[in-house]
Amino acid sequence: AQIALERDYETQREFDTRFRVLMEATRDAHLFVSLQTGRITEANTAAATALGSDRDDIVNTALTALVEGRRKGELIEALTTQALAERPVAVEARARKGGDPLRLVPTIFRSGGDRMLLLRVETSSEGAAGGDALA
Amino acid sequence: AQIALERDYETQREFDTRFRVLMEATRDAHLFVSLQTGRITEANTAAATALGSDRDDIVNTALTALVEGRRKGELIEALTTQALAERPVAVEARARKGGDPLRLVPTIFRSGGDRMLLLRVETSSEGAAGGDALA
Repeated sequence: AQIALERDYETQREFDTRFRVLMEATRDAHLFVSLQTGRITEANTAAATALGSDRDDIVNTALTALVEGRRKGELIEALTTQALAERPVAVEARARKGGDPLRLVPTIFRSGGDRMLLLRVETSSEGAAGGDALA
Repeated sequence: AQIALERDYETQREFDTRFRVLMEATRDAHLFVSLQTGRITEANTAAATALGSDRDDIVNTALTALVEGRRKGELIEALTTQALAERPVAVEARARKGGDPLRLVPTIFRSGGDRMLLLRVETSSEGAAGGDALA
């Protein structure tokens, strides 16, 4: 059992490496947010740039400290609602630093005991399809 | 030590989940290829579509069974060369199924004892910047 566990451990460590390589290779800006804490757990450089910060500065920071929704205090709720919607639309928001308009496209999933959001962050320079949800 | 290992194991399992969610959420088509075996180890749906196949059909398949380079037998070599180049350019290739022209943008990394390529697969419908490497 110990050997099997160690073998699994190696396999999973490789997923960690692949995850980090993929995060930086994708041209999309991506953030992971824990719904338990409201904090960003992972972000790529493209996402940090969209928020006007460095990657190391935004990991472990509360999402709402970096991004404001259209209505106060409802950003995480709006993202969760859209992630669970049958026809999800992007949530409009704004970077607190710089004030750039953002569109957040959420995916919700379960990881360990926590629910997580993966957010694709689109800036106004991108052509945007589909409707908007007011956050 | 056993408890620490199990805790690490849980952490790494969460990376596995995040990896799979990210693979499908990104709009880019991505493939991972083992340099040891030449086979695709992971692919997202977008990449499978670009190759004219289903995702489950291309995982564990040799890259060269699905994609042909411009010159015979040198596709993996051309990708590795570009991944290691100071100014990498996309490698031009063609899907064997359907014959669509593809541009492969490689990243090389080490995972466990193996070297891996992450390939971003661009189809002709995308605007392409930069030069080309003849494979």
